[in-house]
Amino acid sequence: MPILESISGPADLKTLSVEQLRRLADQIRDLITSTVSQSGGHLASNLGVVETTIALHVVFDFLTDRLLWDVGHQCYAHKILTGRKELFSRLRQQDGLSGFPSPQESAYDPFAVGHAGTSIATALGMALGAQHKKTTEKIVVVVGDASIVNGLSFEALNNLGLVKRQLLILLNDNSMAIDITQGAIAKFLAHVRLSHTYEDIRRTTRRILEHMPLIGKPMEDALEKFKKTLRMQVSPSRLFESLNIPYFGPVDGHDIGALIELFRAMNHLDTPAILHVYTKKGHGFEPADANPRKYHSTGPFEINGNGEGAPKGERTFTDAFADAIVDLAQQDSRIVAITAAMPDGTGLVPFREQFPDRCFDVGIAESVAVDMAAGMAKQGLRPVVCIYSTFLQRSFDQIFQEVSLQDLPVIFCIDRAGVVGSDGPTHHGLYDIGYLRMLPNLIVACPASEAELRSALEMAVGSEHPVAIRYPKENVPNGQLEPLTAAPMVAGKSVTLRPGGEIVLVGIGPVVIHALRAAEQLAEKGMEVGVIGARFAKPIDASLIDLLEQGKTLIVLEDHTIAAGFASALLEQGALRNVSQPGRAVKGRILPLACPDVFIPAGTRNHQLAGFGLSAEKIVELVLSLRS
Amino acid sequence: MPILESISGPADLKTLSVEQLRRLADQIRDLITSTVSQSGGHLASNLGVVETTIALHVVFDFLTDRLLWDVGHQCYAHKILTGRKELFSRLRQQDGLSGFPSPQESAYDPFAVGHAGTSIATALGMALGAQHKKTTEKIVVVVGDASIVNGLSFEALNNLGLVKRQLLILLNDNSMAIDITQGAIAKFLAHVRLSHTYEDIRRTTRRILEHMPLIGKPMEDALEKFKKTLRMQVSPSRLFESLNIPYFGPVDGHDIGALIELFRAMNHLDTPAILHVYTKKGHGFEPADANPRKYHSTGPFEINGNGEGAPKGERTFTDAFADAIVDLAQQDSRIVAITAAMPDGTGLVPFREQFPDRCFDVGIAESVAVDMAAGMAKQGLRPVVCIYSTFLQRSFDQIFQEVSLQDLPVIFCIDRAGVVGSDGPTHHGLYDIGYLRMLPNLIVACPASEAELRSALEMAVGSEHPVAIRYPKENVPNGQLEPLTAAPMVAGKSVTLRPGGEIVLVGIGPVVIHALRAAEQLAEKGMEVGVIGARFAKPIDASLIDLLEQGKTLIVLEDHTIAAGFASALLEQGALRNVSQPGRAVKGRILPLACPDVFIPAGTRNHQLAGFGLSAEKIVELVLSLRS
Repeated sequence: MPILESISGPADLKTLSVEQLRRLADQIRDLITSTVSQSGGHLASNLGVVETTIALHVVFDFLTDRLLWDVGHQCYAHKILTGRKELFSRLRQQDGLSGFPSPQESAYDPFAVGHAGTSIATALGMALGAQHKKTTEKIVVVVGDASIVNGLSFEALNNLGLVKRQLLILLNDNSMAIDITQGAIAKFLAHVRLSHTYEDIRRTTRRILEHMPLIGKPMEDALEKFKKTLRMQVSPSRLFESLNIPYFGPVDGHDIGALIELFRAMNHLDTPAILHVYTKKGHGFEPADANPRKYHSTGPFEINGNGEGAPKGERTFTDAFADAIVDLAQQDSRIVAITAAMPDGTGLVPFREQFPDRCFDVGIAESVAVDMAAGMAKQGLRPVVCIYSTFLQRSFDQIFQEVSLQDLPVIFCIDRAGVVGSDGPTHHGLYDIGYLRMLPNLIVACPASEAELRSALEMAVGSEHPVAIRYPKENVPNGQLEPLTAAPMVAGKSVTLRPGGEIVLVGIGPVVIHALRAAEQLAEKGMEVGVIGARFAKPIDASLIDLLEQGKTLIVLEDHTIAAGFASALLEQGALRNVSQPGRAVKGRILPLACPDVFIPAGTRNHQLAGFGLSAEKIVELVLSLRS
Repeated sequence: MPILESISGPADLKTLSVEQLRRLADQIRDLITSTVSQSGGHLASNLGVVETTIALHVVFDFLTDRLLWDVGHQCYAHKILTGRKELFSRLRQQDGLSGFPSPQESAYDPFAVGHAGTSIATALGMALGAQHKKTTEKIVVVVGDASIVNGLSFEALNNLGLVKRQLLILLNDNSMAIDITQGAIAKFLAHVRLSHTYEDIRRTTRRILEHMPLIGKPMEDALEKFKKTLRMQVSPSRLFESLNIPYFGPVDGHDIGALIELFRAMNHLDTPAILHVYTKKGHGFEPADANPRKYHSTGPFEINGNGEGAPKGERTFTDAFADAIVDLAQQDSRIVAITAAMPDGTGLVPFREQFPDRCFDVGIAESVAVDMAAGMAKQGLRPVVCIYSTFLQRSFDQIFQEVSLQDLPVIFCIDRAGVVGSDGPTHHGLYDIGYLRMLPNLIVACPASEAELRSALEMAVGSEHPVAIRYPKENVPNGQLEPLTAAPMVAGKSVTLRPGGEIVLVGIGPVVIHALRAAEQLAEKGMEVGVIGARFAKPIDASLIDLLEQGKTLIVLEDHTIAAGFASALLEQGALRNVSQPGRAVKGRILPLACPDVFIPAGTRNHQLAGFGLSAEKIVELVLSLRS
């Protein structure tokens, strides 16, 4: 019988031998591979931390102790071991398991996370909380080499001195960030890794275990003595020395027995400390081992296939952007592109292949990506910042000060705007219209089709002001919408997709397709409603306010939270007209269909959109209710 | 004749002897001291960088070359030397000079800044822009020891390897952040400073000048050799070594002659490099030298006084908060407070004096402040995060993921919400209602009086959800508003301050006082309008929407940008009622008085508010126009 079948929770691990744990690791790896081949998800990083996860659950009790996964996408083995094995087949599905840690699923997950670089910061707070309450639970962080370069990680490391108790930081170094490693720290870690043999690493493990300071000894002296036993040619300790954080390692992250001993030994430290663990992304599944980048975040695939994965799907907005920026860059040498560790996800790979000197990857560091772009724009370039909507939240203040206040022509290409389906609440891009349209000088374009996306990018490259272009994780629309939206994008001008009616459906972005379909269904019932593609969340087309003044009813569709979104912008402009022209009260009304003020769980995008009224059926229903 | 009188621009400096430049430094210091004694502003940091500024302008030509000041508040000498001497008497005033760099004032200022940690990031972008265009201008950054610990600085340092040309970073180490230095880096720098004598520093300067690699030599070899000549007992170079950034110093930042030689020598480097400069905050003005914290940012003061400064002014919202948190913390041991290098400005000094173990200063690192609070809240504490509105923009993503998504009871006390007067556009807090009210679970309280601020804080401490409390840089209202607002704050409940009328003035925060005054003036004219204190931007009081449904006209007053603000929230709720109850169309209308979609320059707060209609006179005018 597979050992995995007998494991109902972490307690069951504690009686197993190291050899049994090794077999368990293989079984967990098989389960992860077969599940992700069906559901899609993060594969390589999860395969890399199976042994670490097992060893952690052998040594600690994470109902009392606290385990924080940075980014969180490497938590699959943890979920399998903490009572969620049966639900694991419903990974990333409606009413199934989140692909990220989730306190709603399990008491073993203290934080719901999906953004990088937060774990040391929250652990710092938890450790200070324990210090304040004088409780003794152990706190453990698992953070990757890609996350530790984020500014937030650094701010947390710089403040670890506030903690006067245990706090274990596992630096899970799989020698590869999401894409090729970037930046000085990554290069330094790679250099360290290349200068150590496997034998070195085993020797380091033995030294740590022999020299680990014991309880009772004055910790500072003991640590000082310990450091002297660990002189290496190239020691990563100097990276952490000036931050005054005790450092141990590097050690082998696939040696369960050694990890268990190391965690037990380090448990006695009454100070924050870093244990540097070497793991291999994709460990144990050959295609992922050979091509971890491809299997970082994957759709469903064939396990025994040739590693080429599923056939290419339909054309997405990301594909459309990928081609558009290459075409424009061929004509305009001012165009450069910036990504924060996501050249694949944002569609920059073809651009980088053609223009390697014009493509900059700053690692998971969204704030510097935006300020760097501002500096480039000041020099006359046209930088295109490619960051997912949810991650661009991290650059809000830089967009404010370095871009909007200076009125610099930085272009933001914001993929994953709106609901994103299976990644769930940490990844939806539901706030970008709100946080962007508050800022003066910014233009916020929301293309509904490939033609509009391309035209918006052309407009942005020609603009002297900052332009944000948002589009969802979605296929570009086939059929009628492309020809209807062929006219060039002009800032603040909407496009009429279907004329007429006292009721007008105004859609922003590709969700306008639901308005078109609803209008067709209503026409079949003998009722004519107009359809307008809004195109811009800022500036607002004054002709839309004219419709309100004429007393029309506007049903507004947007893939954004209701608060501060596009409908809200229309309402404001109507209200401002009340102030500037008090005699001509705006008589029309707006009925917004948008995401309500809640977090939307994982599911399909269409299901999520329909949940807030964005389907032809729901729109028809609403229109009919207005008539009754 | 004072030398300063003969200086009309940087070119005039280039012919002066070092001795003349020294005298010029003294004259500039006098001008800064006398001006700030009248206008208020940043004193100590400006006195510290006079020699550095002069030496920079002697060596570089910053119409072609680029000079970036981090934070920017230390740019006074730079302004005096770059053609703004005559306007300097109007520092921080309406139609005068900004207290920060401003491209609108001068081509010598590439970026308008006021937030910390951005300069290396923008310089990185400018250097890459120059690299792309193959231009040869020099780029220089002046960044303080308090700014370099910000995560954004670190992200930029980590990516400096992208730059293959000159980029000089002056680490202006005045050994004191805004308050007492915080964090490992600050401690490390302080340790380095304490282990060097003045003679050491002079020796270092000589060594740098003797061994500076020359053009033509292979740079890498030369730098390697150079490093060997610079072995010190405690070298700050190891802080930058793992980031692979060439480091030079520390050198004396008040020795103009040496600085000029150093800048000239380093100008030949074709790689980014750090020059570590020791300066003294308040250098040359005894009271500021003795008490640089007091003179960091000051109001007007008496130059020959006893250093006690101007008499204490009226009671501010900051004062009210300072007392309220101490009182509450005495009764509730769960309350802890977090500041990002601003214990003075946010009113935390009395709390820190009483509860030193419960007050945490993370340095200029707003992101980690919020995540740390989330970790503490998870442990059952009630952390109070005290950050100015504009700086909290840097934590937007952390408020989203770690606080709102987890629904943790973190309390945000947001001072400097709304317009801030003389600090101008980088410091106004005009976006917080917008970026906060988009997030589920958050409560956004906007107290109008001391009673309401205290009650909001009590409510927040008792809440199981996150609560943000925003208040302006303003005195608490005297007279009628305090008794009218004595009833406890209840989430989502407004308070009627004056009943009646078809027109109701709804004010949020202390600007409601203008509504009360307007109502009194209107009553004198025989016209009754109601006045409501809204108290909460989220949740919205449904009774306000009832008024709309009844057909009333609401004039809405808020100290926030029109986009996504409080009026916008009311409009949305009205529109949502149109959807949920389509038969009962909302008939009333909203007339918003809020900050328009532009940046508001420095001036007095009252002038700024009146500019967007927030004065009794303007409100009366608007009400009367509705009648005509």
